[in-house]
Amino acid sequence: MHKTAPTDAPILNTLAVRWSPYVFSPRPVRRVDLQSLFEAARWAASSYNEQPWRFIVGVRGQGDTHARVLSCLTEKNQAWARAAPVLAIGVFMRNLASSGEGNRAAQHDLGLASANLAIEATRRKLHVHMMIGIDPDAAREAFSIPEDAEALTAMAIGYHETELAGGSALRKREASPRSRHPLDEFVFGDHFGQSADL
Amino acid sequence: MHKTAPTDAPILNTLAVRWSPYVFSPRPVRRVDLQSLFEAARWAASSYNEQPWRFIVGVRGQGDTHARVLSCLTEKNQAWARAAPVLAIGVFMRNLASSGEGNRAAQHDLGLASANLAIEATRRKLHVHMMIGIDPDAAREAFSIPEDAEALTAMAIGYHETELAGGSALRKREASPRSRHPLDEFVFGDHFGQSADL
Repeated sequence: MHKTAPTDAPILNTLAVRWSPYVFSPRPVRRVDLQSLFEAARWAASSYNEQPWRFIVGVRGQGDTHARVLSCLTEKNQAWARAAPVLAIGVFMRNLASSGEGNRAAQHDLGLASANLAIEATRRKLHVHMMIGIDPDAAREAFSIPEDAEALTAMAIGYHETELAGGSALRKREASPRSRHPLDEFVFGDHFGQSADL
Repeated sequence: MHKTAPTDAPILNTLAVRWSPYVFSPRPVRRVDLQSLFEAARWAASSYNEQPWRFIVGVRGQGDTHARVLSCLTEKNQAWARAAPVLAIGVFMRNLASSGEGNRAAQHDLGLASANLAIEATRRKLHVHMMIGIDPDAAREAFSIPEDAEALTAMAIGYHETELAGGSALRKREASPRSRHPLDEFVFGDHFGQSADL
């Protein structure tokens, strides 16, 4: 299945072919690939180079972390995400290590790192499906997350399953066309809401 | 100047060579390049496909938006960012368009879109320097940002200035080696703070 974005302007192919599947293959992710995924996250930009991102990673077949990450997801997400061979939780540090003050960029910068990870995954034919549907308190309990950190996201990482049926509702959901607002609805010039003349 | 990341595992070259300069060239950014930058942002992932990101973009020489964006930055950022031919503000929508409830992923997803933009810029030999040092209230006033949206970041976009001196303090800041925490300090397994066995 290809879901290349129908772009209005040319962009890096890896960005255009990235999408978030619901049906994952049991095929394991190679260790070297996983290392490069997190290495890509590592080199993201961050405010004051604080690198406020943390990840908790569970690999199926290695201890019980995969099962414990799964248990932190909403039931709807658990239903499809359990098939992914790698599950991760995205955590941000609330405060600046430098001053102890709140880091207003923390959630944003976790996003920067996660985007890098997803792009590195895409070029390795892997897929990442990010989720906001998690229980942060359950994650705090399950993984002893301290007060100055907070779980925000989860990620299912693996190969797209193209062979098996995988549940018709999920397949249908996957097959829907990709859509986005046009540029003139989110890139503004003179004022918020007024399209920029790019 | 090359500041390729000294990676411990191989990653996409575009991710490795991205960095945030302080000294921008006055060379303008082509319209087609700008369009592709925001097109790359457009195709980022987002929770419930809400696409909560908005951008206000000022191009030097086109009206006063560039000057007005500049006025929303902290003084320290204004000092170097004024040289960039394109300045943008990153805004997130607080609430889900679907339900009106708060969107917990909004800031994170603005980060996903901004990372895409930075990667597209990098492959076009452009640079993006993101900033958290802005005055959100000044931005609200200057650009009529409504209550259900909030300015979070700014971005200086342009070419790195390699010829002119550009201020020795900024040059020195640019020349510092790139550094990041090693993987075992932010990728955890059994518990938060315990390195994953990747």
